[in-house]
Amino acid sequence: MKTRAAVAFAAGKPLEVLEVDLEGPKAGEVLIELKATGVCHTDAFTLSGEDPEGAFPTILGHEGAGVVVEVGSGVTSVKPGDSVIPLYTPECRECDFCLHPKTNLCQKIRSTQGQGLMPDGTSRFSLDGKPLLHYMGCSTFSNYTVLPEIAVAKIREDAPFDKACYIGCGVTTGVGAVIFDAKVEVGSTVAVFGLGGIGLNVIQGAKLAGASRIIGIDTNPDKAEMATRFGMTDFINPKDVDMKTTEAVIDLTNGGVDYSFECIGNVNTMRQALECAHKGWGESWVIGVAGAGQEISTRPFQLVTGRSWRGTAFGGARGRTDVPTVVDWYMDGKIQIDPLITHTLPLEDINTAFDLMHEGKSIRSVILF
Amino acid sequence: MKTRAAVAFAAGKPLEVLEVDLEGPKAGEVLIELKATGVCHTDAFTLSGEDPEGAFPTILGHEGAGVVVEVGSGVTSVKPGDSVIPLYTPECRECDFCLHPKTNLCQKIRSTQGQGLMPDGTSRFSLDGKPLLHYMGCSTFSNYTVLPEIAVAKIREDAPFDKACYIGCGVTTGVGAVIFDAKVEVGSTVAVFGLGGIGLNVIQGAKLAGASRIIGIDTNPDKAEMATRFGMTDFINPKDVDMKTTEAVIDLTNGGVDYSFECIGNVNTMRQALECAHKGWGESWVIGVAGAGQEISTRPFQLVTGRSWRGTAFGGARGRTDVPTVVDWYMDGKIQIDPLITHTLPLEDINTAFDLMHEGKSIRSVILF
Repeated sequence: MKTRAAVAFAAGKPLEVLEVDLEGPKAGEVLIELKATGVCHTDAFTLSGEDPEGAFPTILGHEGAGVVVEVGSGVTSVKPGDSVIPLYTPECRECDFCLHPKTNLCQKIRSTQGQGLMPDGTSRFSLDGKPLLHYMGCSTFSNYTVLPEIAVAKIREDAPFDKACYIGCGVTTGVGAVIFDAKVEVGSTVAVFGLGGIGLNVIQGAKLAGASRIIGIDTNPDKAEMATRFGMTDFINPKDVDMKTTEAVIDLTNGGVDYSFECIGNVNTMRQALECAHKGWGESWVIGVAGAGQEISTRPFQLVTGRSWRGTAFGGARGRTDVPTVVDWYMDGKIQIDPLITHTLPLEDINTAFDLMHEGKSIRSVILF
Repeated sequence: MKTRAAVAFAAGKPLEVLEVDLEGPKAGEVLIELKATGVCHTDAFTLSGEDPEGAFPTILGHEGAGVVVEVGSGVTSVKPGDSVIPLYTPECRECDFCLHPKTNLCQKIRSTQGQGLMPDGTSRFSLDGKPLLHYMGCSTFSNYTVLPEIAVAKIREDAPFDKACYIGCGVTTGVGAVIFDAKVEVGSTVAVFGLGGIGLNVIQGAKLAGASRIIGIDTNPDKAEMATRFGMTDFINPKDVDMKTTEAVIDLTNGGVDYSFECIGNVNTMRQALECAHKGWGESWVIGVAGAGQEISTRPFQLVTGRSWRGTAFGGARGRTDVPTVVDWYMDGKIQIDPLITHTLPLEDINTAFDLMHEGKSIRSVILF
């Protein structure tokens, strides 16, 4: 079949929207019609050429929502007509990782996914007979895409696609880090470094978890208003405080926070996030992705006196199990998504979405098919 | 009263054994007759002058066992004749730390203890009318000492002092790191960096916890025999393997260990210990104390892919609660101490104990009073 898609032919070049060829689902695969997709920093990171694993030509996008059109043989968990969210972290429920209680990082199709291929080692996308690579196992910058069944979360049918798509990455990454990974308890104190989309979702996750104090840290004071709407109780602008950011947080919280989250991808703020965690029990969670080769460091005394340095990916969510739950939280009004979708655009304008992101003018742009 | 004690008059000088003056217990304090004390690397670290918090003149020693002689007013948890172990990490059961489920680092008397003083800000020891400092709240290199009640663990009376004293630091630090802090599960895989006293105690803790594979790492092959007796299943000498130590551990364990413990105090092996932990769920625990100002580092990718970097002090033990339990484990044959006590010496020969340690000829030397 043919599908409209935004193709990334090379690093640093604008995407080109055109018709490409898409093979139907093989055994264990699902053909999905995407209704909406978010444009995420990770797409921009790969498109920039800085992602050491980036490969071209490819169809980017990993934050979508849509409807099942056709299923390959053996597929039992979804059927045509089901509302679904593609999962860049799948959930096979049978690998060592899925069967381990402490991780969500299913490894079943890790190697082929990393190569931009389906589990059988081939691509379903092509142009003029030449294969186009899949991206993060999703390729949601295409009206239609094919995914392995284990990478498809079935969600409730009344969830609006133009909001639910954001649950495919940003919402779950932030809210899930708090709920599924850190397991923040009622009454906890929380510090959030960086008030972009991930930081705002961490804030609303902390609010949902019943945190008593949620401290947001950002050098851009314009971000404080939205963060406050999402549950931030205190704002620190590192440019406005005389002391170090770490000291300012410790000062506000009688010794440090129970949980801190780094949502920027800066190794310096990662250290600050660790060192403002409370002696004895403070946990610091890295969410942001640092540049290639960069390293974090601290004195080991920080750990020996009871702080933990941890990391989270896709919010600790087991995709097929937990993503439908996050959708429920949205539909039940427990979390907000609508104010975070600052722009909606047609696929033809997808490069504008990247521009808005680079200029800091959007929280999340969503492409509607 | 008078007591014989080994006094450290200055950094880098031998201890001097002589009679010093000791005031009896004030309210909330306990006078103890020490029967035995271990000589630990931490004593040597402070004596060397490298400990930035070290202060002189002082009476070192923090790993003792003895009998209560007299109690001050208000003391209810111990009485004269009780067998006890002094606690350098006390347990007041009422500070924010004691009441928090995730830490053992009671802070009740932290500031005065750090200054070498009793909680009222004075010293009980003196010589020729001039005060001598307490050390780590214990000063066990003295036949008699005074401690706050919250720093005294009552133990069973049939425990031999010359072995039980080691539970006051080394045994609990190693075994407890596995049991109380990491909570290693039956069937887990474990890597132990450094096969000195702490490493051997981590190994027997891992064996007690039912670990399926216990990998010891040390550049000294002579240490393998004792480690094997304590439960080590595999030995890696970094000098003998062609690959990096991290790779050797990953190779042996199909992707890395569930838990690793750094028992050396070297920031490079701390990094190795983290990076040989299993993707998704591996936890690395720092036990060793690094030199002043040294830093650990890694790529944050190590954390984001599911490894945790943590630290432990005094094995996560809540002293008054857990130390008696560790004594029970020894008396019940669940853990071994006797082979670790390589030398017993009278107080007069305490400098020999330091020499044996520096020459690598002892695992633990115990001073008998």
